[in-house]
Amino acid sequence: MKFGFLVFPDLEELDLIGPWEMVGMWGKLFGGPESRLIVAQSHDPILCARGLSLNPHTSFEQCPQLDFLLVPGGEGTRKEVDNPLLVRFVSEQAKHCSAVLSVCTGTFLLHKAGLLSGKKATTHWNSLARLKELGDVTVVEERVVRDGNIWSSSGVSAGIDLALAFIAEIAGEKTAAKVQFGSEYYPSEKRYGTLHESPMAPAYLKKRV
Amino acid sequence: MKFGFLVFPDLEELDLIGPWEMVGMWGKLFGGPESRLIVAQSHDPILCARGLSLNPHTSFEQCPQLDFLLVPGGEGTRKEVDNPLLVRFVSEQAKHCSAVLSVCTGTFLLHKAGLLSGKKATTHWNSLARLKELGDVTVVEERVVRDGNIWSSSGVSAGIDLALAFIAEIAGEKTAAKVQFGSEYYPSEKRYGTLHESPMAPAYLKKRV
Repeated sequence: MKFGFLVFPDLEELDLIGPWEMVGMWGKLFGGPESRLIVAQSHDPILCARGLSLNPHTSFEQCPQLDFLLVPGGEGTRKEVDNPLLVRFVSEQAKHCSAVLSVCTGTFLLHKAGLLSGKKATTHWNSLARLKELGDVTVVEERVVRDGNIWSSSGVSAGIDLALAFIAEIAGEKTAAKVQFGSEYYPSEKRYGTLHESPMAPAYLKKRV
Repeated sequence: MKFGFLVFPDLEELDLIGPWEMVGMWGKLFGGPESRLIVAQSHDPILCARGLSLNPHTSFEQCPQLDFLLVPGGEGTRKEVDNPLLVRFVSEQAKHCSAVLSVCTGTFLLHKAGLLSGKKATTHWNSLARLKELGDVTVVEERVVRDGNIWSSSGVSAGIDLALAFIAEIAGEKTAAKVQFGSEYYPSEKRYGTLHESPMAPAYLKKRV
């Protein structure tokens, strides 16, 4: 199996590396995808939103057909929705992918690639209104949303939850448990301050408070 | 303020990028460290444990005195404890750092640099016994441990909790809240399978079950 991770300038680092870590552990230790590829328009280094520089494994042109494709979000998505090469890469790959996943504002790239029309999806709380404005997406304020073979998550750190839910679906709960234990993903439930109670907070969070 | 992130071959990606994201958001949006540097022995690309290739910002030789230094873990730490250049970099920087932080098995690098003798610290559940065997560290099975200006966390994903706790300490609860909200770090509390109840599970997790 081949799992691709799309990258582009000004992506949000944790959007990418949260799922990358989970899928990497699954692939390297617990029978998951043996090929995990970071794919960009070219082989040049990618400068991420918080200043990390990373090196793609392959380019759009050289990338093999993937089984799974994950699209992170970040400020860069606002520019990349107007990049026809990137949008076409996503839509062409998606035709033969078993699943396409997005984190945070990566959802807007899936939409531009024509993957979300008439579907349920989510995004970062600060972009929910913008996603609703697109008109043809049923916006669901959950942390992880699945509609058929399209998966999406809320903002930044939610990609970790997305990846574990996806692994549980594809490889079973016991495999997801091994990845969760291996990555010691039993987060503190600490809430700092009161922003999680603000009117901007997504519905899934308000429900939990 | 200058916040350094040590990197070396076969580090575990999320150990680094979890805190990198939190500190990056703090620095870029909410008044945190304006300089955030990824530091390696040389400027060559670093190949991480799950296959990510990243580019350091600076080398040990060219790195300015840091205010804060974070040391991630991963398989690579087993080799790097015997790298005198890296160990010396950590111990020399630590002399004038306000705080030194480690994630996962990064704790063993702090120990080798002489920073943990007589101190409380923690590491990944699978390395707790090895940390205890060192003899001069009081091993505490909490998710985040602070002893004076030395902070450590349990495995991989725990670096996110570490970073938020650190930001709350340095910049206050309201700033930590902004970073938590911005990164939408309100993780699912889902436990896959039963490994979190296994005898190997760290004490903090057993307490929560």
